[in-house]
Amino acid sequence: MKVAIVGSTGAVGQEFIRLFEEGRLGVEELALFSSARSAGQKRLFRGEDLTIQLAKPELLGDFDVVFFSAGSGTSREMIPQIPGNRTVCIDNSSAFRMDPDVPLVIPEVNPHHLTASSRLIAVPNCSTIMLLMAVAPLAQKFPISRLVVSTYQSASGAGAAAMQELLDQTQGYLSGEEPAPSILPHPYAFNLFSHNSPIDESGMNEEERKGVFESRKILDAPELQVTMTCVRVPVLRAHCESIVIEFASDCPSEEEARTLLSSAPGLEVVDDRERNHFPTPRMASGAEDIFVGRIRRDAGHPRGLCLFVAGDQLLKGAALNAVQIAEAMQARGWISGSP
Amino acid sequence: MKVAIVGSTGAVGQEFIRLFEEGRLGVEELALFSSARSAGQKRLFRGEDLTIQLAKPELLGDFDVVFFSAGSGTSREMIPQIPGNRTVCIDNSSAFRMDPDVPLVIPEVNPHHLTASSRLIAVPNCSTIMLLMAVAPLAQKFPISRLVVSTYQSASGAGAAAMQELLDQTQGYLSGEEPAPSILPHPYAFNLFSHNSPIDESGMNEEERKGVFESRKILDAPELQVTMTCVRVPVLRAHCESIVIEFASDCPSEEEARTLLSSAPGLEVVDDRERNHFPTPRMASGAEDIFVGRIRRDAGHPRGLCLFVAGDQLLKGAALNAVQIAEAMQARGWISGSP
Repeated sequence: MKVAIVGSTGAVGQEFIRLFEEGRLGVEELALFSSARSAGQKRLFRGEDLTIQLAKPELLGDFDVVFFSAGSGTSREMIPQIPGNRTVCIDNSSAFRMDPDVPLVIPEVNPHHLTASSRLIAVPNCSTIMLLMAVAPLAQKFPISRLVVSTYQSASGAGAAAMQELLDQTQGYLSGEEPAPSILPHPYAFNLFSHNSPIDESGMNEEERKGVFESRKILDAPELQVTMTCVRVPVLRAHCESIVIEFASDCPSEEEARTLLSSAPGLEVVDDRERNHFPTPRMASGAEDIFVGRIRRDAGHPRGLCLFVAGDQLLKGAALNAVQIAEAMQARGWISGSP
Repeated sequence: MKVAIVGSTGAVGQEFIRLFEEGRLGVEELALFSSARSAGQKRLFRGEDLTIQLAKPELLGDFDVVFFSAGSGTSREMIPQIPGNRTVCIDNSSAFRMDPDVPLVIPEVNPHHLTASSRLIAVPNCSTIMLLMAVAPLAQKFPISRLVVSTYQSASGAGAAAMQELLDQTQGYLSGEEPAPSILPHPYAFNLFSHNSPIDESGMNEEERKGVFESRKILDAPELQVTMTCVRVPVLRAHCESIVIEFASDCPSEEEARTLLSSAPGLEVVDDRERNHFPTPRMASGAEDIFVGRIRRDAGHPRGLCLFVAGDQLLKGAALNAVQIAEAMQARGWISGSP
């Protein structure tokens, strides 16, 4: 299996390298690509120094899988120009997510959207992945009509530099310094703010739009109503979400919901009321599973159920989900390097 | 005006002293009380050292107003034993909030619940105050049927020691130390967790129950449906809330909502989509107003409207609201020391 990463130096790129070192996808040959800024740098992989090359589409046609995590501009520019039909591109950016010809896949949720001829597969936005990991196991048995979601999103979604800014600014705050925001638009130390993505005429920001439209596409539910509010909190690398699900007709009991969620792949139920033990970013950081708890019937709606989830934004929210897509393609024999 | 504070050394107690130093309520004589642990300590007030006395109900009957901020146990024990009928007790604890004979008041929202004979008035829970400050100006014109709320609550709600724990733990984290939670049940540095109050059989925690039942009482809306999820975030002294309002029949347009909120007392609209400038805990910290923004029609509900609020938990969420209750009683001539 010949694999390349475009965007190897970013926070997500680092996680790809780590996952391949752990043996995911049975990578035999790994090549690292980046923009001109980082090309020429080296990264250790299985004890060897790999030199990061300047990304160019003509260099990517011989790989079995190429993972893109360098922003939607790079994906939009490069992916259509990759020569030949060998390479499966798995794109972490938003460039092609809403393209009707491009499957948008969470392997536990909609693996049936993958086909033998898929050569470009989009990874959903991190907050969509966490939302649907918890919602889909219920929605498959009990049709849903609406989701109301408020997010608690970490710095990592804005990249490694934003994580460093949170650490530096917090250190500065504790030393009495005034914060000087640079990567993110607002002071971040002991502060939170509405998600830093552009806002459309309806008042929704881009992160919220992603949640709405990606959820509909992944669940094949064009009528699904989604109310979403996306907020950045001073946490390093795991997102949380407060979720209210409204069911179309029957609402699962708390026990039924707990049973369905407990047996869902990639999901871990953490829901101990007595010990006040529920999902937190701390427990989710570095973990592959999405954690779900606060499972309860909604006191404010007869067909409502509430959940609280936490998940690692860099892993299941990005790199891990991308690798799992490749593994799903590989298992079906749909990648040229497949065994 | 003779005023006393029971619970003078806590985070809220400090804010009372500061507000009286600024001239609020025209306090002529201030006495400070506390539990045995802090009695005997001194606090500066207008350049004079006041000695904190051990709180006993028999010492409180000569004051015009006594502010209680020492937990519900102290309030429940002392308030009924205060001799005479002179003293107006304003209670920040939850002890009497749901007592049908005790008005539960946000002066901008339900001042009509105050009466000439009110001698005990309860201050709502901080997260209820912020919620209704933003909701009531709309609900008064457009009847509402449901609220869906997720909170982003600061350390201050758990007291001054919790604020210090957040600072210390964060400093420790940055030095590579493992957090050792003591005041709050979970690691707090760069972390968040479900609100640390006990959880009932339905799965709601106490903070959420307060939001539901206090909102109904304050708005005289026993049928109001409230879905609430309360979360503690690593922020020092201001709460935020993501709010979705569902209206019973007519939903205000975005413009109507903005107009109503802009002219509501105690509320400041911060809602600049172009500059991504919305309410944050940082802008709310130390401010008397509640900030509201992200005003938008709900893409997920035909009669829904979304808001995001931020407010100082110690001021409008506690001490300031209590002082404003006393000022409202004073303005009506319902306090014995009134001019």
